Amino acid sequence: MKTLIIGIIAGSLTTIAFLPQLIRAVKTKHTKDLSLGTFSLFGAGVFLWLIYGILLKEMPIILANAVTLIFVLLIAFMKIKHG
Amino acid sequence: MKTLIIGIIAGSLTTIAFLPQLIRAVKTKHTKDLSLGTFSLFGAGVFLWLIYGILLKEMPIILANAVTLIFVLLIAFMKIKHG
Repeated sequence: MKTLIIGIIAGSLTTIAFLPQLIRAVKTKHTKDLSLGTFSLFGAGVFLWLIYGILLKEMPIILANAVTLIFVLLIAFMKIKHG
Repeated sequence: MKTLIIGIIAGSLTTIAFLPQLIRAVKTKHTKDLSLGTFSLFGAGVFLWLIYGILLKEMPIILANAVTLIFVLLIAFMKIKHG
């Protein structure tokens, strides 16, 4: 139970974390300082964490990574768009 | 075994992912487009994932998050330094 709660808080934080970066990119349309390599590799890794969570049947891992993947793909898209 | 391998690859990717961003920040000394909120929240979340991995005794989660935490703290430090 303690593990589940910590997992839910951890997943909420590492997921919500990408919102300020996404909002900043959308607002400023400036993404020059962002590394496309970082967001590409991270997106691929998050996708595999999602599979890992499904195999472990650990809901915090599944939920956190599913939503994070969407945010990270959107940031990568902004980077590709604005350079 | 399959789960462990996927976890190791996932952890390697989401950890190595932050290296290009860190290298870019160190080289260019430009971090204006980075969101401090993102790297702060993400760092806090990664710290909790580390605790979560320790409680689950899942080595891929422990290792990945320990190293990721170091990279993310260094990026946050660069952001604070260069604005």
